[in-house]
Amino acid sequence: MNEFPQQFYNQLMHGYDASFNRSGIDGERVATRLAKLSEIGLTSENGSSRMGFSTEERQAKEQVKRWMKEAGLDVREDGAGNVFGRMNGTDSEAPIVLSGSHLDSVPNGGHFDGPLGVLTALEVVEAWKKTGYQPRVSYEVAIFTDEEGSRFKGGLSGSTAMVGDVNQEEQLKLIDVNGDSFQKVIEKDGITVSGYFDSKRELKEIAAFIEVHIEQGKQLENQNLPVGVVTGIAGPCWLELTFHGEAGHAGNTPMNDRKDALIAASLFIQELERFPKEVSSTAVATVGQLHVHPNGINVIPGKVTLTVDVRDIHKDTRDLLIDEIITMAKEVAELREITLEVVENIRIAPVPISFQMQGKVMKAIEEQGIESYLLPSGAGHDAMIIGRHIPTAMLFVRSKDGISHNPKEWTSLNDCVIAAHVLKNLIEDLTE
Amino acid sequence: MNEFPQQFYNQLMHGYDASFNRSGIDGERVATRLAKLSEIGLTSENGSSRMGFSTEERQAKEQVKRWMKEAGLDVREDGAGNVFGRMNGTDSEAPIVLSGSHLDSVPNGGHFDGPLGVLTALEVVEAWKKTGYQPRVSYEVAIFTDEEGSRFKGGLSGSTAMVGDVNQEEQLKLIDVNGDSFQKVIEKDGITVSGYFDSKRELKEIAAFIEVHIEQGKQLENQNLPVGVVTGIAGPCWLELTFHGEAGHAGNTPMNDRKDALIAASLFIQELERFPKEVSSTAVATVGQLHVHPNGINVIPGKVTLTVDVRDIHKDTRDLLIDEIITMAKEVAELREITLEVVENIRIAPVPISFQMQGKVMKAIEEQGIESYLLPSGAGHDAMIIGRHIPTAMLFVRSKDGISHNPKEWTSLNDCVIAAHVLKNLIEDLTE
Repeated sequence: MNEFPQQFYNQLMHGYDASFNRSGIDGERVATRLAKLSEIGLTSENGSSRMGFSTEERQAKEQVKRWMKEAGLDVREDGAGNVFGRMNGTDSEAPIVLSGSHLDSVPNGGHFDGPLGVLTALEVVEAWKKTGYQPRVSYEVAIFTDEEGSRFKGGLSGSTAMVGDVNQEEQLKLIDVNGDSFQKVIEKDGITVSGYFDSKRELKEIAAFIEVHIEQGKQLENQNLPVGVVTGIAGPCWLELTFHGEAGHAGNTPMNDRKDALIAASLFIQELERFPKEVSSTAVATVGQLHVHPNGINVIPGKVTLTVDVRDIHKDTRDLLIDEIITMAKEVAELREITLEVVENIRIAPVPISFQMQGKVMKAIEEQGIESYLLPSGAGHDAMIIGRHIPTAMLFVRSKDGISHNPKEWTSLNDCVIAAHVLKNLIEDLTE
Repeated sequence: MNEFPQQFYNQLMHGYDASFNRSGIDGERVATRLAKLSEIGLTSENGSSRMGFSTEERQAKEQVKRWMKEAGLDVREDGAGNVFGRMNGTDSEAPIVLSGSHLDSVPNGGHFDGPLGVLTALEVVEAWKKTGYQPRVSYEVAIFTDEEGSRFKGGLSGSTAMVGDVNQEEQLKLIDVNGDSFQKVIEKDGITVSGYFDSKRELKEIAAFIEVHIEQGKQLENQNLPVGVVTGIAGPCWLELTFHGEAGHAGNTPMNDRKDALIAASLFIQELERFPKEVSSTAVATVGQLHVHPNGINVIPGKVTLTVDVRDIHKDTRDLLIDEIITMAKEVAELREITLEVVENIRIAPVPISFQMQGKVMKAIEEQGIESYLLPSGAGHDAMIIGRHIPTAMLFVRSKDGISHNPKEWTSLNDCVIAAHVLKNLIEDLTE
């Protein structure tokens, strides 16, 4: 047997402050469960590979379902493979409160992105079980199917089905990384097409959704804080820009007779940097991918293709920013006498978190004696899908060096357990 | 048999102005010979593949040797495979005049780069034979081995051996594209290591070297001129710069907390453009190759590696330019709080053409009723190697759209024949 899960557990426990074991929350249990899940889909680099709808995702779900049952929850799975573990409140008529995340991962990803949100939601139940607490409002722990989307380059499949936002026609057209159809893939996981399309929940029966997730950035680390309040989830827009210039011999073409596509692209990249802050303090824009053609040492670049990732948590400023970026790119192309092609690949609406929900998270954090810190989520999450329909909040947990989607992804057990305490306070507030 | 050589001949003859058939020079012969050589190593895209030391280069040499013999030249081959076809002058004691170029090509290259210089040099002899002219000074037509260097990523092998500039130790270490040693490769072509190393000529026996070559640029086309006087051969310097920043999630890293290697690289590329003209009117600097790591749409670039090709025909300005570029790159890195790594891969000394030799080429051009136009050679040629030791001149011939190293390489037969006339005038001036 691979020794990693034991090492991972030991690493989590090393430096753990046992005084966080209070109010029924138990750090060792959280560490044991994170380690147990790390076994499933463990890679040679000690990362996690649990693609959506895979045997590994299924195994992880079955493992958590066993823990849910041991904690006394009523466990059911919907037609999309989403798992709900329910603890009935004293008022069975009141809309429920839901918390959870996902168990799938990117290929060779980390062991916190997803599982932490599921296990902290379950830890609230464990704590209540220990202290004999029963909420007024019923509470459900959720596992959403295929959040990452490495399989079909989409993701958020489970939460989208739960809220009824699936585009059936588009969904059936999807082909996975192995060339298999959506239908074939989900049927292998015991899910049917009709079950998937019919898994929309009655949304008015859900009062609120809370997701705990690692930050995947460095703001909390820079602030020296274990957790933070998410103010909104930035919807990304992905543009692909191609600058068409003219290739030529680097030695035989005078500087003033060139149409160098890379110089035009560089001017665009330079200008781009100052654009986000002009529209919003939370906006970002990034050129992450760039290809030069023909990419020869002694050839003037004839064509440069680059991607621009534009995000903000406010739709109006994000969309304004996109327009301004495209206008600027056109001006650069004109100035450099270069042809420009712009393709918009995706544009997902951002989801702001209501001030009321932000306030509740702040209160729960401050009850733990921790200062509230507000930050946007640049990455998409199940909360982005659910937040379009149901009052939603997100709690971010500090990520070491901001690294995620990587075997090096790390969040200390202290921070994981603090997140469980904050979540417990918050859920108790919401289920009162 | 492939139809291309006949098509190529027809294309050359189409629009040919037969009034250029004078003073013994014959355009149809030049076209026939260009077409005949195009058969050897013809690619599926109608390009030329005659790597240095290959069967195809050998076949082309043997073909031209037959033509040399038919023209009455004394033909010999030195230890490096360089071919010299000699026409004795009336004064057998006077240092000779040499003209020629190469017959090898890049993979899938064109049919003019190299052959035109050999065939125009031979056409001078054909013209003299026709008119019964004998020069005072002996004249030799040269074919230099392996100019392009696609095989060992070096090139100029034949001319370097002739002038005695070979670094024996380095040469023996060379491994070709198939993993074969220099010795193995040349022996297959009938050349021995000792023969190659001992092929230095007595340089004081050569009074001058002239190379006719296609421009591989668009200056003559832009000037609407068939030929031009090369003022110097730019020695390239190749730098590899690596900007090390910090990768991060494009959504979760605020704009002011980034160390984006691509923004630094872009600033460098922007600044670079204005540097060459500050040192010299003939200097150029080009970023032709650029790689972004990890190159993900939603990942801030952590590392950018790019190449800078710096050239000028004057060593002092070229070297000053290199220093200024490196200083500027360091300033950019410092400004952006990024680490910079600089590697110098090659630095070849430029070869200026003497005013005396330029003047002789100008005179020969003007005798044809053509305006003299001066331009630098950005690319390296055998003339660059020979010009370090022997008075050398180069005559450039107009290239359609500046395209070379490509099956689309094209120079009209009119321009080829004009070049032969200019070369004949020039050789007659030098051999008087």
